[in-house]
Amino acid sequence: MTAFTKVEFELRIAKVRKSMDQKNCEILIVTDPSNMAWLTGYDGWSFYVHQCVILTLEGEPLWFGREMDTKGAKRTVFMKQENIIGYPDDYVQNSMKHPMEFLSRILLGKNLGQKTIGVEKDNYYFSASCLESLQKNLTQANFVDSTGLVNWQRIVKSSRELEFMRKAARIVEKMHARIFEVMEPGMRKNDLVAEIFHSGITGTEGAGGDYPAIVPMTPTGADASAPHLTWDDQPIPYNSGTFFEIAGCYRHYHCPLSRTVYLGNPPQKYFDVENAVLEGIEAGLEAAKPGNLAEDIEAAWRKTIARHGFEKESRCGYSIGLSYPPDWGERTVSFRKGDKTVLEQNMTFHFMPALWFEDWGLETTESIVITENNAETLANVPRKLFVKS
Amino acid sequence: MTAFTKVEFELRIAKVRKSMDQKNCEILIVTDPSNMAWLTGYDGWSFYVHQCVILTLEGEPLWFGREMDTKGAKRTVFMKQENIIGYPDDYVQNSMKHPMEFLSRILLGKNLGQKTIGVEKDNYYFSASCLESLQKNLTQANFVDSTGLVNWQRIVKSSRELEFMRKAARIVEKMHARIFEVMEPGMRKNDLVAEIFHSGITGTEGAGGDYPAIVPMTPTGADASAPHLTWDDQPIPYNSGTFFEIAGCYRHYHCPLSRTVYLGNPPQKYFDVENAVLEGIEAGLEAAKPGNLAEDIEAAWRKTIARHGFEKESRCGYSIGLSYPPDWGERTVSFRKGDKTVLEQNMTFHFMPALWFEDWGLETTESIVITENNAETLANVPRKLFVKS
Repeated sequence: MTAFTKVEFELRIAKVRKSMDQKNCEILIVTDPSNMAWLTGYDGWSFYVHQCVILTLEGEPLWFGREMDTKGAKRTVFMKQENIIGYPDDYVQNSMKHPMEFLSRILLGKNLGQKTIGVEKDNYYFSASCLESLQKNLTQANFVDSTGLVNWQRIVKSSRELEFMRKAARIVEKMHARIFEVMEPGMRKNDLVAEIFHSGITGTEGAGGDYPAIVPMTPTGADASAPHLTWDDQPIPYNSGTFFEIAGCYRHYHCPLSRTVYLGNPPQKYFDVENAVLEGIEAGLEAAKPGNLAEDIEAAWRKTIARHGFEKESRCGYSIGLSYPPDWGERTVSFRKGDKTVLEQNMTFHFMPALWFEDWGLETTESIVITENNAETLANVPRKLFVKS
Repeated sequence: MTAFTKVEFELRIAKVRKSMDQKNCEILIVTDPSNMAWLTGYDGWSFYVHQCVILTLEGEPLWFGREMDTKGAKRTVFMKQENIIGYPDDYVQNSMKHPMEFLSRILLGKNLGQKTIGVEKDNYYFSASCLESLQKNLTQANFVDSTGLVNWQRIVKSSRELEFMRKAARIVEKMHARIFEVMEPGMRKNDLVAEIFHSGITGTEGAGGDYPAIVPMTPTGADASAPHLTWDDQPIPYNSGTFFEIAGCYRHYHCPLSRTVYLGNPPQKYFDVENAVLEGIEAGLEAAKPGNLAEDIEAAWRKTIARHGFEKESRCGYSIGLSYPPDWGERTVSFRKGDKTVLEQNMTFHFMPALWFEDWGLETTESIVITENNAETLANVPRKLFVKS
């Protein structure tokens, strides 16, 4: 059973077709699992083998994947069973034959071999071999790059999508509360991460948690100078700072949120940076409103922290929503100089003004939704450096 | 600090170079995160942006990735800091510029633009755009497909790797014990999965758990007809069967293991299939010994279950070890007809003789290591259908 109505899927498909039409794209081969889920409802951890959704300018989408996964497709997509196509198992991870050969024959059989075909050239799940195989087997087709085409249709959220993200927000609130409750010096980091997972997957009474597209990133001390370390099984020392970049997740919709916890007595630099970050977040949130540009948020943030003597070279936010590993961002809008995306109501972002230094780091972030006149934070977790001494 | 000695990394690199040499490959661009980790120690959830390890025929490997991730590289790889190279943040998820353009300039600067370069054409983390960018910017280079080249060097495990996998085995034993302990009718599935995560990440006293490359797959009843559904937040009904395909994980080394639990009184078909599966596993294990071929295990399994009237079209096992999402397999050896890989001591596999039917399924699997004369199961979990009534 899909989490959304058939009408919602039809609206999504109509938006995508409009964009296809503008780009003279007659067929779309959609390999990004979050795009596949958004267009059809498909849900399963089968993206480690080749699979895709085929969308033409009319009719239902086709789901294409490994034969054994057609059963999962039948249980999760909105389409008729006849629109679910499997390929034999000997195409799986076999250097002698590629699933895209099989798909090519299907497209030829449907007289679709001479069309303009959009492929997501820069997606994790569309390898260089996928393109080479299609080009070799569909010599009459014209391949165009459709990376991001579906993702860009996803940036304004429906009310049901927002409902899911608010459920995810309740979950991430619980997760941060749990961290502060149980974290203590001497505790092995993995034991703390076990509590984070437990809290996130338990979720709330009305909304069980799903797996986020990224696991908790929880580096302590000098490890917190690096943004993407996960965890180890060493005891957390007294007098150390740890940031927690985590997300609540409900039916694959995310609410990421980072906070930093210091065990002991933080050096002054933590407070200095925290002050700058909090002021920068306020400035960014003020710039987050319909009609402003994505880069306006970054500029407001950048100018504010510059007054405190800080600088951040990397982007400070990105679009969020439905996601599968390895990224909970939508890979569309970024809060950075040059991103001229006009903000609209019901767009959702992870405003991610983290600062990493030579031997430490601090993350305090917010997930936000653009409202009619402003922006609203999705989760309600005290926006501060947490200290437990 | 790396989990392996520099000597072990040097041995690994020497094996890879030998294979490069045989294939006339002068430079390897390694994008598979498990290959990157195996060659250098690199560990971080940064594979959602483009990154790679560059290996030539001499000297240390180069780590190449996002500027902010050079900090994580410095903290995890064995190489000198000068061999860690970052690209600016505006190359991240930006349709106007691609990280492989930046890498091309580096290779040209090192006079490596006219070489034969191996790229992992069919890896998740080497998109079609990666290849197109490299081809466009390195017009004098000769690109060859090196998918699996490093993976094949990984199939025989070192003693320290086996030590890690045995630790993972202890963890998965705990996880299955926990499932049987807490599972009961009416429990929300996600609450059970929260316990599985908690147990897996807690790990054991001497070995904290890491994140497996695949999340728990835990379908109940008719959902268990599909192999790759994950979980929902619905209560588990009385009189239903659920399989648990999970892995213990220690420092990214895996021990996958599936068991099926029936709450209530199983219909006879569960016992019939379980009998066939157990006999098939015994037959497969007997065929799992040095000198035999990968396909011999599959044949032994297939012939045995055929006597019981069952058939499984998909492969029944694959090589395992170090892995990052989305796949805990090594994508080399498969237990299926035609796979002529000669089994050697210290190869490790997930022997995966699951059977899925029209409206139910059953998974009882073993992770194994090939020993001097036979094979040994890594974990010790009773090999049976678990019944809780």
